[in-house]
Amino acid sequence: MKNLNSYIDHTNLKPNATKQDIIKLCEDAYRYEFASVCVNPSYVHFCKELLGDTSVKVCTVIGFPLGQNTTETKVNETITAYNDGADEFDMVINVSKLKDGDYNYVKNEISKIVNAVNGKTVKVIIETGLLTDEEKALATRLSCEAGANFVKTCTGFSTGVATVKDVEIMKANVTNGVKIKASAGIRTREDALALINAGAERLGTSAGAEIIK
Amino acid sequence: MKNLNSYIDHTNLKPNATKQDIIKLCEDAYRYEFASVCVNPSYVHFCKELLGDTSVKVCTVIGFPLGQNTTETKVNETITAYNDGADEFDMVINVSKLKDGDYNYVKNEISKIVNAVNGKTVKVIIETGLLTDEEKALATRLSCEAGANFVKTCTGFSTGVATVKDVEIMKANVTNGVKIKASAGIRTREDALALINAGAERLGTSAGAEIIK
Repeated sequence: MKNLNSYIDHTNLKPNATKQDIIKLCEDAYRYEFASVCVNPSYVHFCKELLGDTSVKVCTVIGFPLGQNTTETKVNETITAYNDGADEFDMVINVSKLKDGDYNYVKNEISKIVNAVNGKTVKVIIETGLLTDEEKALATRLSCEAGANFVKTCTGFSTGVATVKDVEIMKANVTNGVKIKASAGIRTREDALALINAGAERLGTSAGAEIIK
Repeated sequence: MKNLNSYIDHTNLKPNATKQDIIKLCEDAYRYEFASVCVNPSYVHFCKELLGDTSVKVCTVIGFPLGQNTTETKVNETITAYNDGADEFDMVINVSKLKDGDYNYVKNEISKIVNAVNGKTVKVIIETGLLTDEEKALATRLSCEAGANFVKTCTGFSTGVATVKDVEIMKANVTNGVKIKASAGIRTREDALALINAGAERLGTSAGAEIIK
């Protein structure tokens, strides 16, 4: 196993995060050598200025947290974030379309975002808290078919949290070497290690500093 | 006072709302003669097909619910919704920028959205639950200066709900004939009447049918 810090996307997606909060997030991510900072789109440019010369990547979110924007809007948001310097793009699927059986819509949307980022990393948030186990498996398979790099459990803004069981479901359904990011509700080292043992290769959390201490 | 039904934006912004849920929303809005249906952007086109020949308007949300997208993305989302047939646009301000004192950013973003909709209705969600009373007053004034048609209390996805006190603060600070929309946590006829008495001219709620019965 790699060092625990390298698994962590150090996350602050609060709608009222101030510039000072984001500076601290970046400083901590640099100090602890986390994989990335994960911030809302309007902070991407600022974080890239702060972290551009370091190994810490800038991750942002697309169609977040409801996923109910049009595909066109999600693609536009992706391109803007790409131009602002984002390295990784955590997009939310359209859960309604999945529930309604419009799998082509879900898959096409992911494909278009994958195509927009020129080989950079796309993570697909399936929002496990709103899905049945069958839908979790299906959303995982669609993400892999569409060319995503990761499937990710939750936004943290809905009902679900990352669970070992959901990571196991995703692990059983990934293809093409697609990885798993567990996110939401990860507060302790024990949480983190259990999710990694289940198959997670990235963890989204705001408690990274406490977890690695 | 007008009839209570004409105040109501009949709202379903759930990330897992199915097509059947949205059909029911539109049917009820038509039956009860509500002002509008308020839906996520990926349902605007569908609702306009269902309601285009009626007096019920189609309202959607922009940068919802975090408001932390870039201005460019919010404007793109507005144009897409406009082209899909939306009549009203409920946008979320960038609370972080307000907190950081970047008032020009907040005002400029609202102005750009107002300019994108060709005279259609823009409502500015200030997310009262995250603001001090002073910030609520300030956000109201900035919205008015930027040319918005309404200021609106809450997204319903954060900590706040519509309160009489907040509507009063907004009422004391609106200029240029800007109206007030109260939203989040409005469950009963008593809630509705209290907010209208305080100055609200529109109510965002998913409980419209119960409220007018």
